[in-house]
Amino acid sequence: MPAPTDAQDFALGDVTLASGATLRGARLAYQTYGTLNADKSNAILYPTWYSGWHTDNEWLIGTDKALNPDEWFIVVPNMLGNGLSTSPSNAASPYDHARFPLVTFADQVDCQYRLVTEHFGITTLPLVTGWSMGAGQTYQWAVAHPEMVQRAVPFCGSSVTAPHNKVFLESLATALVADAAYADGDYTAPPVKGLRAFARIYAGWGFSQAFYWREEWRTLGFTSFDDFLYGFWEQFFRDGRDPNNLLAMIRTWHTGDVGNTPGFDGDTEAALRSIRCPLLAMPAEKDLYFPPEDEQWATQFIPDGQVRVIPGVWGHFAGGGKNPEDTDFIDAAIAEMLARPGYVG
Amino acid sequence: MPAPTDAQDFALGDVTLASGATLRGARLAYQTYGTLNADKSNAILYPTWYSGWHTDNEWLIGTDKALNPDEWFIVVPNMLGNGLSTSPSNAASPYDHARFPLVTFADQVDCQYRLVTEHFGITTLPLVTGWSMGAGQTYQWAVAHPEMVQRAVPFCGSSVTAPHNKVFLESLATALVADAAYADGDYTAPPVKGLRAFARIYAGWGFSQAFYWREEWRTLGFTSFDDFLYGFWEQFFRDGRDPNNLLAMIRTWHTGDVGNTPGFDGDTEAALRSIRCPLLAMPAEKDLYFPPEDEQWATQFIPDGQVRVIPGVWGHFAGGGKNPEDTDFIDAAIAEMLARPGYVG
Repeated sequence: MPAPTDAQDFALGDVTLASGATLRGARLAYQTYGTLNADKSNAILYPTWYSGWHTDNEWLIGTDKALNPDEWFIVVPNMLGNGLSTSPSNAASPYDHARFPLVTFADQVDCQYRLVTEHFGITTLPLVTGWSMGAGQTYQWAVAHPEMVQRAVPFCGSSVTAPHNKVFLESLATALVADAAYADGDYTAPPVKGLRAFARIYAGWGFSQAFYWREEWRTLGFTSFDDFLYGFWEQFFRDGRDPNNLLAMIRTWHTGDVGNTPGFDGDTEAALRSIRCPLLAMPAEKDLYFPPEDEQWATQFIPDGQVRVIPGVWGHFAGGGKNPEDTDFIDAAIAEMLARPGYVG
Repeated sequence: MPAPTDAQDFALGDVTLASGATLRGARLAYQTYGTLNADKSNAILYPTWYSGWHTDNEWLIGTDKALNPDEWFIVVPNMLGNGLSTSPSNAASPYDHARFPLVTFADQVDCQYRLVTEHFGITTLPLVTGWSMGAGQTYQWAVAHPEMVQRAVPFCGSSVTAPHNKVFLESLATALVADAAYADGDYTAPPVKGLRAFARIYAGWGFSQAFYWREEWRTLGFTSFDDFLYGFWEQFFRDGRDPNNLLAMIRTWHTGDVGNTPGFDGDTEAALRSIRCPLLAMPAEKDLYFPPEDEQWATQFIPDGQVRVIPGVWGHFAGGGKNPEDTDFIDAAIAEMLARPGYVG
């Protein structure tokens, strides 16, 4: 699947990141669904996930869904680094390719905040929600802009990247750069051996042991185990996903921690305690890199935080929109959250 | 740690493998602990695990342990492929390096059977036990030689390699060979980038999410997260573990299935039903590639099979002898099994 070309562009200008690097002429690619109402009170923010584009979020949006574009104005900003917004694959020198600077979750949300406030004039968000790294951005929004976020529903993602999760991320990165064709990021052709290893590692983590045991990949239309490993995983990562972009987003993910939001000085618990809105964390029962226990830990500090586990064997991909049962579960929870009173600053 | 040099050698001669390849002049390296009694009734077989040597099994043997060499004659055969027995690193042409043929679990046990019967004249084994691939060999013994095995205690391993486990194995293999220095197996220097990726992948799977969250690696003497990733994992795989050997043992593991024992025609359930001895499977609670559910599945078919889960956060390495609490748990279970009547053919 080629990268989508329908995104709109918000010119960020020069963005100075938490690291101190300044991305000059940065752009945020985004898409909207529905119409912003007159008093600008119906906007929902729905950030993207690791390597995902805004189009990859659309499965949760529809007139038959809680995220109904007839009612809500849904804004999907593409993460910096995902190839559509400013990324290693499109940044100008000196930050092109492997020289792209670290973009933290806080940086991502700062850029999205500017889109929402400067471009749309929105000052309140009835809901922020997202899957995986989109959940990380959801937590970040709730900590960085508690005055704006009325409700938060992070699913299959966390407020702080757990150490074990970092081991997974490092395994991906070291496998990709082990291929000499990666050429320190200045490759002329894709490092296909590295990408193959990358895809194989991801395949083991993305779905649960029981998913494979039960051959649930058949429900996705694959005809054999190998067909799934090649047709789903390898194709995904080799098809329009730039290796430097993949590595840049890993760096973002690796450093995820709401405690790093300015004002909290690294204190993750204090950051979680500062969240004002109702927050429903939805980890998946068998998620291997965002296990439910991490969200149990986080929500104990959030005044109006709770956990609802997505049951079943799909693991992390319970939140990927591929399994109707899980999608219904998430959709119903979002509907329930939207029906309850949100935080009003 | 250099490879041990104290192993004894059993000359297997020419070994025709299940694949049809004949390993000429094959050798089985082994070590024994204790003394074989006059009627040869006190022998315990304790095979090695993935990449392990016989010395890596010694933590479970001792006069203060169930595997007491004052009472038992404990035989530890090194797996073919582990660098001490016939392996890619020491095999003669045409089966040297990456050209080493597939050695199945059934092949491994056939060689061990010859050591036990031809060399020692042993016809009964009060116990077969082992960790991980050693557990796989334990299952294979119970199926291939039910007349000999009186008790079986496979821990943190399985009777058939689960599909998800295969994804993990393929990720290891593809990462290692992604390094051009691997040179199709005819490397002149270690493919260190590939081995680093290999070690990082293994680090994520070997211990549980909670192990990392709680920084349990501190109990192993490591001072930081990175110190553990480098000092434990990278050092292990770069220190005397030959890449072709690592890949050969992955091929063994990948094809693990007691159903492939001659006479069962691929029927795993029938093979499990044929086990005559009491079998205690001990998966670890948070083992990420040998999850307890797989052993629950297997033991339902074994007439005298039961599961006892090793509790705690050490994951697969609960069976690695590094955590005293887990070691005590395993040791106590083996003692309990040895105290109960075994199968007598």
